Amino acid sequence: MAMDQIHLWIGAIATIAFAITGVLAIADRGVDLFGVLVLGVITAIGGGTIRDIILGVPAFWSSSQIFVWLALGACVLTFVAESFFTQPQIYRWMLYIDGLGAALFGIQGADKAWSAGFGLPVGPVILGVVTAIGGGLLRDILAGRKTLLMSHELYAIPVTLGCCIYVLILNFLPEYTLEGSVICMLAIFGLRVAAIRWDLRVPKVFITKRR
Amino acid sequence: MAMDQIHLWIGAIATIAFAITGVLAIADRGVDLFGVLVLGVITAIGGGTIRDIILGVPAFWSSSQIFVWLALGACVLTFVAESFFTQPQIYRWMLYIDGLGAALFGIQGADKAWSAGFGLPVGPVILGVVTAIGGGLLRDILAGRKTLLMSHELYAIPVTLGCCIYVLILNFLPEYTLEGSVICMLAIFGLRVAAIRWDLRVPKVFITKRR
Amino acid sequence: MAMDQIHLWIGAIATIAFAITGVLAIADRGVDLFGVLVLGVITAIGGGTIRDIILGVPAFWSSSQIFVWLALGACVLTFVAESFFTQPQIYRWMLYIDGLGAALFGIQGADKAWSAGFGLPVGPVILGVVTAIGGGLLRDILAGRKTLLMSHELYAIPVTLGCCIYVLILNFLPEYTLEGSVICMLAIFGLRVAAIRWDLRVPKVFITKRR
Repeated sequence: MAMDQIHLWIGAIATIAFAITGVLAIADRGVDLFGVLVLGVITAIGGGTIRDIILGVPAFWSSSQIFVWLALGACVLTFVAESFFTQPQIYRWMLYIDGLGAALFGIQGADKAWSAGFGLPVGPVILGVVTAIGGGLLRDILAGRKTLLMSHELYAIPVTLGCCIYVLILNFLPEYTLEGSVICMLAIFGLRVAAIRWDLRVPKVFITKRR
Repeated sequence: MAMDQIHLWIGAIATIAFAITGVLAIADRGVDLFGVLVLGVITAIGGGTIRDIILGVPAFWSSSQIFVWLALGACVLTFVAESFFTQPQIYRWMLYIDGLGAALFGIQGADKAWSAGFGLPVGPVILGVVTAIGGGLLRDILAGRKTLLMSHELYAIPVTLGCCIYVLILNFLPEYTLEGSVICMLAIFGLRVAAIRWDLRVPKVFITKRR
Repeated sequence: MAMDQIHLWIGAIATIAFAITGVLAIADRGVDLFGVLVLGVITAIGGGTIRDIILGVPAFWSSSQIFVWLALGACVLTFVAESFFTQPQIYRWMLYIDGLGAALFGIQGADKAWSAGFGLPVGPVILGVVTAIGGGLLRDILAGRKTLLMSHELYAIPVTLGCCIYVLILNFLPEYTLEGSVICMLAIFGLRVAAIRWDLRVPKVFITKRR
């Protein structure tokens, strides 16, 4: 199986996981099915859309709508079977797949910006992070929730670290791009799994004092 | 009178209505005239602007600024004559015209995306909805209000249904595009009027449980 | 020293000041270092990014990343030395430099839109204001704070007035563009300094009644 196909499969699974966790994050607020569809789809494809807008290229889902359909399907499924997905064990699995998605989307985003020669070397890191967390930020803003940036979760930080390392590999070891992308994804995923598993958070010393 | 001219007239009236209802929605929070101008104009032209950004074409108001001027004028008028517009009878009329505007902007947005061949067939529906409700969402986010997506109003749903039907007509009955656009607009408008008139909302069975 | 170089220097100082005041505005909410970096950088370069997206040109920091680095550095500095910057005397100085930055960014933004022939004559005013306040709005939205538009601070109003006058000069006195830009910047800066110094706010007569 070629790398592209693996990416497509992980991308599809990740899109579904993003939509599911996206809907679950807001379901406790009493959202109607339309809101569920909009906010779930935005969680799943919003980050890539912002990335493409900043890159000045057509939104990725304008040519491959499969991701929109997958997200819509996942939203309906989550709406109907919410009580299934909120079971602690299942929910944790969704978080893991969501973490895999963040890893894939982050590295894919950095890769797309790098290939476009956008703002090297900082641009690919920024756009990788935007791809991975932009959709969740949009959802939280539209749903009136506190965004990820104000929580102290270890979510964006693993993505940022992974994208930084990936950009270093692209720059200094271009012949190891493929291996590098896999390693960086695994690193992001591993950190994210550890954060979920042991409820790791940003240490207090790195947090400003609340007044 | 040609169809284009009718669109222009409805567009102008709708822009004014969007600005007025946009300002009235936030006026009770104590907003200064500058905030009124910015938030009213964003309500009126924000949706079309987001649509054009996603489409990758220049913002519609960069070539025909009449809509910006109309919105600005309507904002000043609303600021000065707020007590007039908040009379229940007048306010209801504004909501009706606002509904007509949502119908027009939705179908126009879908049409623009379809003509650009953007992400067929899902793209035109998404961008139609974005055109109709994007400005209101932006206003609510900037004003710190709960957005439409978290209310259970029948606003975005009629627009979405209308855009779906319109896209089906564009696809399967392209020779009836004109008639189709009028029918879809009237359908959206009719549903919206009914929702305002009888205070219809999304039935509870379609709403997630608040925890 | 050429005008371009002066702009570059003021731009660099303003970027640093925007990042510092941007971080200080949210530091009291208990933000982690990652959030500080993201929100500070967004405050500093977000307005120009939105402007460039609406203009349809590549984000300004994709070619000159120095502004991103300066913002990142200023964020780290503010995180480490927060107690230094929150001293009333120092903080006021930061606000002054921030005001200088708003003046520069506003006029630069209007200038960029004018040169691109974007939506004359309204477009340059809108994009000037977007450049000056867009980053702060994004930060406030992402941090869950009340935005500038809902406060009654004299911040956006001086910028808007300055941009209006600058556009009038560009239109009617094109031979005085250089002098005009300096005068408009000084006017914005002067109004902003006066607003900080004497805590001037929008008079009550220009504010809608809170209900």
